[in-house]
Amino acid sequence: MKLATLADGRLDGSLLVVSQDLQRAVPVPAIAASLHDAVQRWDEVQPSLAEVYDALNAGRAAGARVFDGAACTAPLPRAPQWLDGSAFLNHGRLMEQAFNTPPIPDFDTVPVMYQGASDDFLGPQADVPLPSEADGIDFEGEFGVVTGPVPMGVSPEAALRCVRLVVQINDWSLRALGPHEMKTGFGFLQAKPSTAFAPVAVTPDELGEAWRDGRVQLKLHVQWNGERFGEPHGGEMNFHFGQLIAHAARTRRLTAGTIIGSGTVSNVARGAGSACIAERRVIEKIDQGEMRTGFMKFGDRVRMQARFADGRDGPFGVIDQRVVRG
Amino acid sequence: MKLATLADGRLDGSLLVVSQDLQRAVPVPAIAASLHDAVQRWDEVQPSLAEVYDALNAGRAAGARVFDGAACTAPLPRAPQWLDGSAFLNHGRLMEQAFNTPPIPDFDTVPVMYQGASDDFLGPQADVPLPSEADGIDFEGEFGVVTGPVPMGVSPEAALRCVRLVVQINDWSLRALGPHEMKTGFGFLQAKPSTAFAPVAVTPDELGEAWRDGRVQLKLHVQWNGERFGEPHGGEMNFHFGQLIAHAARTRRLTAGTIIGSGTVSNVARGAGSACIAERRVIEKIDQGEMRTGFMKFGDRVRMQARFADGRDGPFGVIDQRVVRG
Repeated sequence: MKLATLADGRLDGSLLVVSQDLQRAVPVPAIAASLHDAVQRWDEVQPSLAEVYDALNAGRAAGARVFDGAACTAPLPRAPQWLDGSAFLNHGRLMEQAFNTPPIPDFDTVPVMYQGASDDFLGPQADVPLPSEADGIDFEGEFGVVTGPVPMGVSPEAALRCVRLVVQINDWSLRALGPHEMKTGFGFLQAKPSTAFAPVAVTPDELGEAWRDGRVQLKLHVQWNGERFGEPHGGEMNFHFGQLIAHAARTRRLTAGTIIGSGTVSNVARGAGSACIAERRVIEKIDQGEMRTGFMKFGDRVRMQARFADGRDGPFGVIDQRVVRG
Repeated sequence: MKLATLADGRLDGSLLVVSQDLQRAVPVPAIAASLHDAVQRWDEVQPSLAEVYDALNAGRAAGARVFDGAACTAPLPRAPQWLDGSAFLNHGRLMEQAFNTPPIPDFDTVPVMYQGASDDFLGPQADVPLPSEADGIDFEGEFGVVTGPVPMGVSPEAALRCVRLVVQINDWSLRALGPHEMKTGFGFLQAKPSTAFAPVAVTPDELGEAWRDGRVQLKLHVQWNGERFGEPHGGEMNFHFGQLIAHAARTRRLTAGTIIGSGTVSNVARGAGSACIAERRVIEKIDQGEMRTGFMKFGDRVRMQARFADGRDGPFGVIDQRVVRG
């Protein structure tokens, strides 16, 4: 099942069921007011949503219209929680070198994760207002999951069964502010402005073979100002989403609608490119002796889209955003 | 004006106006469904709420009943954001010694702040389910503010004018988990289970002279299992709430209902005692050569109540919680 949220001026927007091919959509106000509402009452509404989805795909859903990702907010414009891991250890190791920070203890065995702001997410094609180019404006391409209710102390295996939806994320970052905030020990705050999401959230079964081992087995194609930047593969994630959820729920329950991110998708093979500028910069330093690529300027665009191994478009739609002076 | 939230089984509870003396309360469903709703529409609902408050204090509000803090949730059972500073530098400096962490850069001039979970706050007398005594269970007595909408890049002075309500907080902490999470640089997550709040949120004018210089000029009286633990004064806060809000809004706007905490109330004078166990422990180590006090056990209680300088009860009601095995 594919779901999206139409921007309608309300804080949670209104829920759309989107066709399998992303061409058509139908509003479903009679089933749930919003995706947030649907996630709260998932077991109750899921059968009705699936019925609409089947009708839409069969071309017989009343009220269907053309699907326009640009008219959508993030699937959840606000969420109870947004927790972002750093589950691609290749990225983390490179970033340690970039930031010149001390090695993170138990990095291979205990996930690292920060709590992000979840009150004000950006839509897939929303402009990104930021205060200064001097802050080191960077994108971060990620995958993520939306959970149902998760009990405290859940096992990684049971946690995987709490996954309701899979999403694609652009975790905007301000690199000049990150190292100071890491050194405080209190974590990222100013370094992580509002996060953006691709328009379509999908149930794991929509991914078919591309949802395996608790990971999204898709390449994430990233373009900066129309030029290829990288297409790292989500399967290289060192911790799976069940492990990330269990980590988050170690000392408290998670409420339905919690979003858990993978951290920047990153592959060991240099040929895959990167899903954020900071990673390319540190690779340049390691391989060529100096960082050559600058960060983003006002007016720059980034485009992100997942793809299946055979080149078909992924199920999440497109993130295509422009940075503007805030 | 004094406001509280009645536990009624719904996620946001229902809004109560509470009398000046905390003896009576009246539900106001016709004005706002919840405090969250009221904070979103503050300019619209504030006059009506003030009218009810005046009638209640004059003994002529229809539907008034006895006010029972134990029947309340946190004023906001969930909030768009929960950001907790560490604005009492005395506490931060002591904790550096306790955790044996490197000095935080620019600690005197730039506030430190972590993003906490805001989806599942605890009520003032709710049991606190935690997984293990070995995690180093600790309370932290704090003050905080609830903001209206805050624009990105706000000045500290303008930020102070965004304060809508003042609250009293118990920021539960698991001390055995904190140092590792600080060393990751990603900040607190498992070390900060659900935060609890005193029942009554008050507009700043309710504090009279005790709201001055952007600080809560009250003592916070803390008892552990019925014994005096400390009564540090909120006026010693090194950064005021306007500075904390401005710090949080440096690279993004804050939505209405954001809660900003002071961090543990802490005074330089040893005689004031402490508002958390970890601070007492490190003082013991410094003054007596070893930490003598252990952390909390299942079944232990903590009580927190603000008081005016003349000994009168503060305006927030009482936090009185018991730790239980989760």
